Amino acid sequence: MSHFEFELEHTDSGSLARAGIWTTPHGAVETPCFMPVGTLASVKGLTPGQLRQVGVQKVLANTYHLALRPGPEVVADLGGLHGFMSWDGPILTDSGGFQVFSLAKLRKLDENGVKFRSHLDGSLLKLTPESAMRIQEQLGADCIMCLDECPPADAPREQMLAAVDLTTRWARRCRDAHQRDDQALFGIVQGGIDREMRERSAEALLPIDFPGYAVGGLSVGEAPPQMYETLDFTVPILPEDRPRYLMGVGTPTDLIEGVSRGIDLFDCVMPTRNGRNALAFTSLGKLRIRNEQFKLDESPLDPECECPTCTQFTRAYLRHLFMVKEMLGPILLSWHNIAFYQKLMRDMRQAIREDRGAEFRSVQLARWNASS
Amino acid sequence: MSHFEFELEHTDSGSLARAGIWTTPHGAVETPCFMPVGTLASVKGLTPGQLRQVGVQKVLANTYHLALRPGPEVVADLGGLHGFMSWDGPILTDSGGFQVFSLAKLRKLDENGVKFRSHLDGSLLKLTPESAMRIQEQLGADCIMCLDECPPADAPREQMLAAVDLTTRWARRCRDAHQRDDQALFGIVQGGIDREMRERSAEALLPIDFPGYAVGGLSVGEAPPQMYETLDFTVPILPEDRPRYLMGVGTPTDLIEGVSRGIDLFDCVMPTRNGRNALAFTSLGKLRIRNEQFKLDESPLDPECECPTCTQFTRAYLRHLFMVKEMLGPILLSWHNIAFYQKLMRDMRQAIREDRGAEFRSVQLARWNASS
Repeated sequence: MSHFEFELEHTDSGSLARAGIWTTPHGAVETPCFMPVGTLASVKGLTPGQLRQVGVQKVLANTYHLALRPGPEVVADLGGLHGFMSWDGPILTDSGGFQVFSLAKLRKLDENGVKFRSHLDGSLLKLTPESAMRIQEQLGADCIMCLDECPPADAPREQMLAAVDLTTRWARRCRDAHQRDDQALFGIVQGGIDREMRERSAEALLPIDFPGYAVGGLSVGEAPPQMYETLDFTVPILPEDRPRYLMGVGTPTDLIEGVSRGIDLFDCVMPTRNGRNALAFTSLGKLRIRNEQFKLDESPLDPECECPTCTQFTRAYLRHLFMVKEMLGPILLSWHNIAFYQKLMRDMRQAIREDRGAEFRSVQLARWNASS
Repeated sequence: MSHFEFELEHTDSGSLARAGIWTTPHGAVETPCFMPVGTLASVKGLTPGQLRQVGVQKVLANTYHLALRPGPEVVADLGGLHGFMSWDGPILTDSGGFQVFSLAKLRKLDENGVKFRSHLDGSLLKLTPESAMRIQEQLGADCIMCLDECPPADAPREQMLAAVDLTTRWARRCRDAHQRDDQALFGIVQGGIDREMRERSAEALLPIDFPGYAVGGLSVGEAPPQMYETLDFTVPILPEDRPRYLMGVGTPTDLIEGVSRGIDLFDCVMPTRNGRNALAFTSLGKLRIRNEQFKLDESPLDPECECPTCTQFTRAYLRHLFMVKEMLGPILLSWHNIAFYQKLMRDMRQAIREDRGAEFRSVQLARWNASS
């Protein structure tokens, strides 16, 4: 019997948006689902209890960073990521590939894998499909990713084609190397914003029969409409009965557009990174809390939000915390932003179940466009 | 009817230690009581809920810092400190004097008050007994302090005498200027480590009939035994029926020694500052969590502690957080350290009520001496 089950509860009558329940060895996740990012096995500034309190069901951690510090053997010795970070819910890890391509230095890519130098101390390291599987098995997340090559959005066609085909060959090697049946290994569709490339990638990956599929290589420089168009022709090729994950995305608008095109899972550093930088996502749009206008503002950060930040503190106090560089400012804004993202997903899910998905999208997008 | 009541529940049979309940307009405080420091209206990294969760009853905020940012008018406009920082329990503010003497530049002291330049932008400011009262009334803490002069521990006798007498004259002006009857104004006994000076200070302040007395000018460079000796001859002069507050102190040992000499209230940045710097106070003594020996240590930070940090996370994970500079490390160690201080005070209180105060002191001091 499989440790995983994806139950598609309902597909919206007016869009491709779906509501589902994805069961993993560490509990069920209601989809569509947004995963906060805990790069180094910590969602910056927040305890697992604080994440639970605002409805987080699943978190992401980054293989590249954890492979460097504290190292996969250390995490394995300490009970895997769940025990290590004291998060008993589902966890997803990426393959490490994306960070190698974006952070590491002196990369050298060949058929076997990618050699690179650590961004921390310059030490020479190597990642192959087999080692990406071994490391992710040591980290022990419920959901893990194939090693892929992610070329820049504007890469020439020849380079894109080579990346798609290499990603396919690496996906087969990942499947062959992966052993833990309590982990769901996702294939990653590449191909930039080119329809033919995306189709080529998906058609090659589908026979490998992964329990879920990710759409990689988006939100890497292309304009949002290009991303949405890419989803338009990519998502419908993916199997309907498997979870679909749009990697590293995105803004509230991106989430709404992604869900309406049939995406189930998202992750992004936006709520936490922006929170640390004094930018809040609210029902009234983006709000820069350092702004002088909030100096004496006794209203909550977001009047429609019921998170601990919004029910306990005023904008004036939050502004003060940032002006005097108190840690609590970044903590409270990150907390709110995550709560905001979770509520957005819950609201979308409810709308889908009530066949209001398309209407919800229109109302929300109008709101976000008006405020930006 | 007074807004304040100090009920002395029990005095230990073998020491001067007392257990009491101090009722304020924002609730009761069980004494002996340790107050975490929220310099800028935030105990660094922790929410009011997290403080409550580990038993904090009363917090301190610093007048000097808040007078500069966001300014007392802003805090007053936003409902005073209680509303501003969303702490509904008792709050104590200092007078600002100590920070003027330790942080500000180009101080000029005369009978009227002290002129100084802000450590932030060099702007010229002035603090007088009257303005110290006005600012603390605007901040709105339950318990406020007279402006005093705090000379260095090794100041010559002549300077100490002048400081004691100026502190007395300022105390009278503070009493005369202070108007809010929902605030308890404490007098501050000065005099360094000199018995005659302390007696002179206390005898001059007692007729002013303050509802509580602070012992200032300790933990400013003198050796711990000198501090304890100073308490030996200072505390017994203070009225038995009023709370006694030892300002800015201290280590767990200092707290144990202070309580056994009849002190009721303490504040110190130690638990939070040390927590941010990876140093934990535990039942086994001080623990530097960055130490290599904890790399694979799955035990809790303090095996005898029941705080959220100790019940949810391992030493290995806490070490990792500090090694990779994740915010959660300082947060979790600060949280534990505050919990540790609160438990120490609760345990002392219980021991006093059971006439085990002297025994408790011996056992605890042996433990701390063995571990340091």
